[in-house]
Amino acid sequence: MAAELFAKHEGRLRKAVDALGSGARWSPFPESPRAYDETAPAAGEERFTARLGRPFELDQPSRSVGRTAERSPYGIDLDVEYPIADADVIMAAAREALPEWAQAEADVRVGVCLEILDRLSEHSFEIAHAVMQTTGQPFLMAFQTGGPHALDRGLEAVARSHVALGRVPGPTRWEAAGKREAGTLERSWRVRPRGVAVTLGASTFPTWHCYPGLFASLATGNVAIVKPHPASVLPLAIVVETARRVLDDAGFDPDVVLLAVDTPHDPIAERLVTHPAAAVVDYAGGTDFGRWIERNAAQAEVFTEARGVNPVIVDSVDDLKGTIRSLASLASTYSGQMCTTPHVVLMPRDGIDAAGARVPFDEAARSLAAAVEGLLADDRRASDVLGAIRNDSILVQIDAAAEAGEVLLASRTVANPTFPGATVRTPVVVAVGAADRGAYLREVSGPVLFVVATDSTAHSLEVAGEAARSLGALAWLVYTTDDEVAASAEQAALDAGVSIALNLAGGFSSSQAAALGDFHPTGANPTGNASLIDPGFVTRRFHMVGVLHSG
Amino acid sequence: MAAELFAKHEGRLRKAVDALGSGARWSPFPESPRAYDETAPAAGEERFTARLGRPFELDQPSRSVGRTAERSPYGIDLDVEYPIADADVIMAAAREALPEWAQAEADVRVGVCLEILDRLSEHSFEIAHAVMQTTGQPFLMAFQTGGPHALDRGLEAVARSHVALGRVPGPTRWEAAGKREAGTLERSWRVRPRGVAVTLGASTFPTWHCYPGLFASLATGNVAIVKPHPASVLPLAIVVETARRVLDDAGFDPDVVLLAVDTPHDPIAERLVTHPAAAVVDYAGGTDFGRWIERNAAQAEVFTEARGVNPVIVDSVDDLKGTIRSLASLASTYSGQMCTTPHVVLMPRDGIDAAGARVPFDEAARSLAAAVEGLLADDRRASDVLGAIRNDSILVQIDAAAEAGEVLLASRTVANPTFPGATVRTPVVVAVGAADRGAYLREVSGPVLFVVATDSTAHSLEVAGEAARSLGALAWLVYTTDDEVAASAEQAALDAGVSIALNLAGGFSSSQAAALGDFHPTGANPTGNASLIDPGFVTRRFHMVGVLHSG
Repeated sequence: MAAELFAKHEGRLRKAVDALGSGARWSPFPESPRAYDETAPAAGEERFTARLGRPFELDQPSRSVGRTAERSPYGIDLDVEYPIADADVIMAAAREALPEWAQAEADVRVGVCLEILDRLSEHSFEIAHAVMQTTGQPFLMAFQTGGPHALDRGLEAVARSHVALGRVPGPTRWEAAGKREAGTLERSWRVRPRGVAVTLGASTFPTWHCYPGLFASLATGNVAIVKPHPASVLPLAIVVETARRVLDDAGFDPDVVLLAVDTPHDPIAERLVTHPAAAVVDYAGGTDFGRWIERNAAQAEVFTEARGVNPVIVDSVDDLKGTIRSLASLASTYSGQMCTTPHVVLMPRDGIDAAGARVPFDEAARSLAAAVEGLLADDRRASDVLGAIRNDSILVQIDAAAEAGEVLLASRTVANPTFPGATVRTPVVVAVGAADRGAYLREVSGPVLFVVATDSTAHSLEVAGEAARSLGALAWLVYTTDDEVAASAEQAALDAGVSIALNLAGGFSSSQAAALGDFHPTGANPTGNASLIDPGFVTRRFHMVGVLHSG
Repeated sequence: MAAELFAKHEGRLRKAVDALGSGARWSPFPESPRAYDETAPAAGEERFTARLGRPFELDQPSRSVGRTAERSPYGIDLDVEYPIADADVIMAAAREALPEWAQAEADVRVGVCLEILDRLSEHSFEIAHAVMQTTGQPFLMAFQTGGPHALDRGLEAVARSHVALGRVPGPTRWEAAGKREAGTLERSWRVRPRGVAVTLGASTFPTWHCYPGLFASLATGNVAIVKPHPASVLPLAIVVETARRVLDDAGFDPDVVLLAVDTPHDPIAERLVTHPAAAVVDYAGGTDFGRWIERNAAQAEVFTEARGVNPVIVDSVDDLKGTIRSLASLASTYSGQMCTTPHVVLMPRDGIDAAGARVPFDEAARSLAAAVEGLLADDRRASDVLGAIRNDSILVQIDAAAEAGEVLLASRTVANPTFPGATVRTPVVVAVGAADRGAYLREVSGPVLFVVATDSTAHSLEVAGEAARSLGALAWLVYTTDDEVAASAEQAALDAGVSIALNLAGGFSSSQAAALGDFHPTGANPTGNASLIDPGFVTRRFHMVGVLHSG
């Protein structure tokens, strides 16, 4: 059975490998809910609802059954109980499962991974509800990022692993050449996975952040312990359940993938990642804990991703209205809780050039505030854009931002017509001077947008560069019609080790994983090194051991 | 001029890339001294002699001119003075040279690297004498490992870098597909070198250990500071001089490659590798300092290589005499000062099977001692095999080994007929029990060979595995005629993360870099991660930054 899975999915794998090479837009996982069977949405919602108010059954080693910090930002009751893990026990179970999986043929492992992705895609609606109700994402975003876009990334990781494993040199024969030599040598290389991979789940995009590391680890022969963020357990519990079923069906020990849930009173993330047997750690979340892991999990290969500070730098535009609409939308989507959400717009204090006319800073800033206000004027539409606030600390950030400068637009409370218990706030838009760095150069998550008056575009780039070096950045959005400014912005981004998007028009949004998913850490600044495009994202998960036979 | 260098060497590069793929034995650098112009040996020796007793001129920033700890193991006077470096000043010079080199086209950098290798090959005889007289290697070994085999590794690093840079995805165009999308996106990736690479030279094989990291760093856009081991400065000073001339000729700032020499009273290795601007560190040497670097140079990507404990495991042989002759030769070559020299032979105490006959442990051990004695009976021949002892701490190790068990062969002092001042000792061969681990499980360099009586071959593998996990290992040499034992040894080596050579016959010796150079760290045990075969050896030296243009 296991061997057949590769053959079953080989066509899909080939297409994915081809797309990696050509950069073409291709996905076997449709991003439109309408592309699925018409019964799928209701069935998925039903499966989700059936999970609530009862224990989540997983036949794996656990200490007890209990609740986590899961709470719906939309105000519905979840009340799911999970098996609670003991770090040593779950690590022992993972190590037990390792040898058989590590020794399986690479194609067999790849086939199993592809089957898991395929089965997960059948759960996309169910997972969408689980993501929505634990992270506060709007439904469509939860469906797309939690389902198809996350699966795209998982498939990309499997395809990249397949390519990397295919590059391990095959056996070579050496004939004796020297005077004192005799016979032949055969040299070959064997892949040695690192061991147990620990994946710490994110609280915002649990599946999207989890799949690349999880599937790259599995495909290269490691076993995996998935430790969800306590605020968003259900999506990854469904993922682990699905993976374990596939492993079992394929004749492998299901403990190749284990779920490690903890309680707020006894967190185990630190114990798991510093465990001597933890050989790989994947983490997406706040910079502080990321740094803690890098310092303390020296025994492991560590992949981290934080958000940093991702500024917009406006110099000059052809279409002021369109650009401002774009920025309003980017700042409002999912209440600014995406890791790539811009929270800082840097503009020269003497204004910007818009199709030849000078627009003063104040006017541009107020237009941006007005665009946010207009976009979110209607409660129903606002609810669809904003989703819900995922935790109370974000409310504190909104209030703090309002104290930090001149409020151009106050945050307002929105009533969600479907979920009366939802916590929904619109962005606060605040004008500050560039010198007031303490106010706007911080890692922020939530509906907060600072419009910052700088001395010039060169000064904007300088501020962005310093922020990237000290706090990290995933991407800069730069708007300029001047080729020289574009070139100097590109060089400044390269120097700062930050990816850059120039004149990104409204049509392309950051929810398109295929186009923008890679605009994540480059490894060259403090946001971390979990860069899917970096060959090391896969190759650091295994070693090669040489074998020489003389005969 | 710079652009022409790629064209000049493109044929050689293509052949090197082909050889990487096919595993064929190919080198443009002949390993036989006879393959060179007949005037080359004398000219090289003259150039070497002309270096002695005077300052080594290098037009680069330095603090003063002074002596290091260089001293010839053959007892000749060296008395070379070098420019002494200040860590901050030399780092500033390197950073100054970085932007232009980093922004040069990849092929231009590759062309410059290939030209440096080509010019270095003209210095192979001169470098051979510099290596011999600072490390104690016999002349032929100093020529082969210091010249052609080191150049092979440098060329391999350039070829691997060329391949890795060629895999950076080219620009991709994305057409708008969604309803709200418009226009196109162009995505590209720019290579961002890490910055300043610090290479710490080794005291045994200074050029052989230096070239892979140095050339991988340079080819991928980093600038390099070469800090030689204080006992072996001259070979790397010649390398830096040559590199700087090529850079200058090609129109680049010669400070792309800098020499950092220190004095015994004011060592700067720690300051260099922990400098905030040190982005890559390459190190080959003792495990303790390697670990220190890994812990303290957290700002850098660190590549290390130590020797660990590399045992021979003898289970059964077809040709006892041949095997024993092989082992005697391996233990004696360069007085056991190579990092791969076996210092421990593990054999079952109830003997081994030799072509069907049982040979008791004692008999096999005494035959090995006799083979060493026979090989080194004549002083002239012994001098050619042994070279010279590179420092006094090795004499202490010989004495300590003689105290640790039953001496089967005492070390004797050899008179070198050419260099009366040379320090030459033959190996001490000592029999110990497996339980006496403190005696034989240590990182040793020098003419010391322990023959260890174990309970069984399974026990031998267990001892080797534990030593690999705690002390590290580069390679195991296993001799067995039993397929099951071979398979279990291979699995044990894989589990321990150590490369393995089975039944290596006498003809193939470990001086053949092309066949055995890769039998160095796998990354999976404490001997370090400087594995040329690992894609990360190259790709960890640069990042990729995404650039998105919307239009």
